[in-house]
Amino acid sequence: MFEKEYDVIVVGAGHAGAEAAAAAANLGSKTLLVTMNLQTIGQMSCNPAMGGIAKGQIVREIDALGGYSGIVSDKSAIQFKMLNKSKGPAMWSPRTQNDRMRFAEEWRMALENTPNVDFYQEMVSGLLIENGRAVGVKTSLGIDIRSKSVVLTNGTFLNGLIHIGNKQFGGGRAGEKAATGITEQLVELGFESGRMKTGTPPRVDGRSLDYSVMIPQPGDLIPEKFSYSDTKALSHQRDCYMTHTSLLVHDLLREGFDRSPMFNGRIKSLGPRYCPSIEDKINRFADKDSHQLFVEPEGWNTVEVYVNGFSTSLPEDVQYKALKSVKGFENVKFFRPGYAIEYDYFPPTQLKHTLETKLIENLYFAGQINGTTGYEEAASQGLMAGINAHLKINEKEAFILNRDEAYIGVLVDDLITKGTEEPYRMFTSRAEYRTLLRQDNADLRLTPRSFEMGLAKKDRLEKMEEKERKSTAFVEFFRETSFKPEEINPILEELDSSTVKQPDKMFKVFSRPKVTMEHMMQLEGVSEFVSDNNLDREVLEQAEIQVKYSGYIAKEKNNADKLQRLENIKIPKGFDYSKLKSLSYEAREKLKAIQPVTISQASRISGVSPSDISVLLVYMGR
Amino acid sequence: MFEKEYDVIVVGAGHAGAEAAAAAANLGSKTLLVTMNLQTIGQMSCNPAMGGIAKGQIVREIDALGGYSGIVSDKSAIQFKMLNKSKGPAMWSPRTQNDRMRFAEEWRMALENTPNVDFYQEMVSGLLIENGRAVGVKTSLGIDIRSKSVVLTNGTFLNGLIHIGNKQFGGGRAGEKAATGITEQLVELGFESGRMKTGTPPRVDGRSLDYSVMIPQPGDLIPEKFSYSDTKALSHQRDCYMTHTSLLVHDLLREGFDRSPMFNGRIKSLGPRYCPSIEDKINRFADKDSHQLFVEPEGWNTVEVYVNGFSTSLPEDVQYKALKSVKGFENVKFFRPGYAIEYDYFPPTQLKHTLETKLIENLYFAGQINGTTGYEEAASQGLMAGINAHLKINEKEAFILNRDEAYIGVLVDDLITKGTEEPYRMFTSRAEYRTLLRQDNADLRLTPRSFEMGLAKKDRLEKMEEKERKSTAFVEFFRETSFKPEEINPILEELDSSTVKQPDKMFKVFSRPKVTMEHMMQLEGVSEFVSDNNLDREVLEQAEIQVKYSGYIAKEKNNADKLQRLENIKIPKGFDYSKLKSLSYEAREKLKAIQPVTISQASRISGVSPSDISVLLVYMGR
Repeated sequence: MFEKEYDVIVVGAGHAGAEAAAAAANLGSKTLLVTMNLQTIGQMSCNPAMGGIAKGQIVREIDALGGYSGIVSDKSAIQFKMLNKSKGPAMWSPRTQNDRMRFAEEWRMALENTPNVDFYQEMVSGLLIENGRAVGVKTSLGIDIRSKSVVLTNGTFLNGLIHIGNKQFGGGRAGEKAATGITEQLVELGFESGRMKTGTPPRVDGRSLDYSVMIPQPGDLIPEKFSYSDTKALSHQRDCYMTHTSLLVHDLLREGFDRSPMFNGRIKSLGPRYCPSIEDKINRFADKDSHQLFVEPEGWNTVEVYVNGFSTSLPEDVQYKALKSVKGFENVKFFRPGYAIEYDYFPPTQLKHTLETKLIENLYFAGQINGTTGYEEAASQGLMAGINAHLKINEKEAFILNRDEAYIGVLVDDLITKGTEEPYRMFTSRAEYRTLLRQDNADLRLTPRSFEMGLAKKDRLEKMEEKERKSTAFVEFFRETSFKPEEINPILEELDSSTVKQPDKMFKVFSRPKVTMEHMMQLEGVSEFVSDNNLDREVLEQAEIQVKYSGYIAKEKNNADKLQRLENIKIPKGFDYSKLKSLSYEAREKLKAIQPVTISQASRISGVSPSDISVLLVYMGR
Repeated sequence: MFEKEYDVIVVGAGHAGAEAAAAAANLGSKTLLVTMNLQTIGQMSCNPAMGGIAKGQIVREIDALGGYSGIVSDKSAIQFKMLNKSKGPAMWSPRTQNDRMRFAEEWRMALENTPNVDFYQEMVSGLLIENGRAVGVKTSLGIDIRSKSVVLTNGTFLNGLIHIGNKQFGGGRAGEKAATGITEQLVELGFESGRMKTGTPPRVDGRSLDYSVMIPQPGDLIPEKFSYSDTKALSHQRDCYMTHTSLLVHDLLREGFDRSPMFNGRIKSLGPRYCPSIEDKINRFADKDSHQLFVEPEGWNTVEVYVNGFSTSLPEDVQYKALKSVKGFENVKFFRPGYAIEYDYFPPTQLKHTLETKLIENLYFAGQINGTTGYEEAASQGLMAGINAHLKINEKEAFILNRDEAYIGVLVDDLITKGTEEPYRMFTSRAEYRTLLRQDNADLRLTPRSFEMGLAKKDRLEKMEEKERKSTAFVEFFRETSFKPEEINPILEELDSSTVKQPDKMFKVFSRPKVTMEHMMQLEGVSEFVSDNNLDREVLEQAEIQVKYSGYIAKEKNNADKLQRLENIKIPKGFDYSKLKSLSYEAREKLKAIQPVTISQASRISGVSPSDISVLLVYMGR
């Protein structure tokens, strides 16, 4: 009924599965995407938005590598915002609000237009394993589909259990069936599994809200976009709105605490710490009188609205009573209540850097099955798993991103080295080299590597090379060209910055904190250079960052290079730690379990101390 | 959590539920639409098409009454065809192919833009009944939502059981959960329930088909549309394709017969006779070497394709092997296999003409729950149930369409009078007055009644009145205006029709079989009248039909009027048939069970003979 043998089978078609299928197929693998429902491909299960702090950088990285999330997000965006614009460029984080229906449709169309992707609708209930290798999947109808490798991206569906108040029922998402069979088989094969929890807020009827008492949250005046490719920026946008909870709202919520599955012990697993439910927030921050709520439209036209910040698994009557007391929600009508969902995950220390499992060859995990939370985290893992599934079966070198190369590198390395006991979410603080890992340079960082590996296409590389060439030339121009004091001084005066007596290189004055590209553009030579060379917004931004933050960037690069030396000291596969008696007991156990590939990775394992690293270094002959 | 009391709660948001909610709300009822999944409102569960023989007339009737199906179909159409154009106008049947995603989206948007419609996502697991009246529903979360009346439109979800070969599993549609609880409660309340079966063909990947060996099935050169309102006709269309099964295909299918749930006794319920599965067709028509298959695109852009004519519940490997042997399908890739589904229905003789149940007041059934099949049949019942639910709670006269007024009248009367043991589908042959019930005059027949009742809006009435005025005037023109022999004779000669010697009324020559409006338009007087009065296509069509078929129409009207006399003889409510000893035993039992409202309805009950009717007529004093 199917290809005699697919190269890659991807199970699940959410953010992770969709990226995995696209990547493997674009690299040339015959790929089958199996999903329980072909009409929910690329479904946004939770908020109708992509990106945000650290996450926006990931979307840009996915795009730079040739993944689809950026393009799909751009095409379905209803609002764009560059967050943290007032901070340094390492913190700038793009985010879109999206039309939920369009987003799913764009994903489906993108996949349909990807040769090598086949589709099949059914529940996968198990894996075909032969000689310790994944060689396909088994469906609930009992069909065996064979493949050279399998990527599991099951999201919250594995034994998904939905909680609302005291009620609980099986389901992968509201209104959708849970998936069964896979966890049981994996555990039998020796995998360790756990339970995690996540939640989602109520959806409500926008027609029942009074927006006039809320604070509009418009998009950027000049909206940018995620993709480095030629998607269009938005010409018009939809507003979000902000409102707040109050002490009254908190009190009303507290009335339901005895029926909260979070507090009465019914839910034992951990939820995402930085995306807590509203009951969690008022519990943990009992001194706060109020929490922000963001009212997000679900699309261009629909009246459905997502109440960001009000995720909850309290009984639906409590949700209702409390939300009704929020300013602007006095007449709120529910489309559906919020709920919590528990699902199976597999501690990701059971994976290699390629996201292949250590136990079963050619089996890859991506997304929530690895204990992460977030669309972007899932999508990036899917991309990496799809890439590496393809490379492995073609006996090519694995594609691994280092921690100084990409947030995706940080994400994967954190997961497989440290594991996670609660849903893992990306933050800028997780990246030690975040000054290097900016949203503006993901293409410069990653497109050449992806092109070399075979995923990013030539036109993407050329676009990036042009940007690099132009911005380098522009920086060079600032280094080499002198300003005239009479031309720069009026600007400096206006900025309350000390004036200059004699000509000097532009780079110098441009490096001053208050001086921006906009100011520099007032100099005739600069504006001439820009128009002569036809420099676009991205080049200007790139050049400005490279001038103004050159010091920081150089310093961080230096640090990264130092650490790279530890990265280069490989630990032999299957190294026997028990013979190193001077290692602490804990370090020995952790090292045995995680099997780090390099000294650097070993140093990041919690419980492995600097002195343990010294022992290893001595042994490895340094 | 909800309105203290809704006027109408509609359970289910398919064709029936969506129309019911729209109608009740547009009439002014506070309406709540409850569905298991808000993202599947208006989902086309089976083929991506609306209308067709007798069904297209129903869509036009729904539109004329102010329902939404015609508008939604027009907006999401990818192809339009007027079927049976070579036959008389009573047989002309409009049909669209639709973009499945757009269709659902247009329905959702139409409902969102209808004031008075609220939405709620959850499974309804039971009804609130007080004193023999429906007063709301109970959800699976245990929420009680109160209302003055309830419309059930559960489709195939009530205890839905999906069959593929020997495998069976619960589900309302592929990938969706079944609904439980309602049947059990209704049976406990005294309702009789039964099981029906329907099926759907595989969906396949259009990229895997060889269309060059199939026969293109394009839309009409000049496409029309369903709605009498100002929706747009298509400016471009997508082709369907035709191919055929063969003896080899049949042999391959037969190999799976021992594993067919249809033949091995696993499925006991009856499926739609006129939409049989492919295994049924090759079994029942064993002498046929080949059956037609229509290859229908699922939308403007998607590669997914619907294989019309290949509905099956054979094991998926048998489906695949057989379909692969169909011309053009040699390399077919499946998106999902076909399947059969069994579900609960309630024999519709338990309903009144308003679709209210006889047993529980203010409880209405519409769609597959009444044993019908087809989108159009479902939608029209939903519309009528929604209308009558509203009228009843407002103590207004019921809105009932007679058999000579609308296919919808035939449908409802058939259902409640004769019941159905197999999925009921509309045919032109079911209507004794089909010459009256044409697609071209649904507005003339129904819009005035709907306007009077309160659903059809003023602009719809005015549009219809203009059409009526203009077409009547045009017919009058033909009656009164004489042709000149020298002008008409060349046309008649060309048509091989006998020439005329002297002037006579145009009506007379226009009545000849071969003479069409196109020919008449060649007469200077006619074309002048058309342009002077700015007559559009619909008026021309209407006038032509009224001229050319005036004899048939008058005769049928006469017959209908005669029968109307029987219709006017009401039978008192709760009439005691047991005292009429001269009634046959069977008639007495049937009359007791069905409780017909008029002598005419009594005459249509199977088992009630003309002599039984005479007995009744005598007793009723005629």
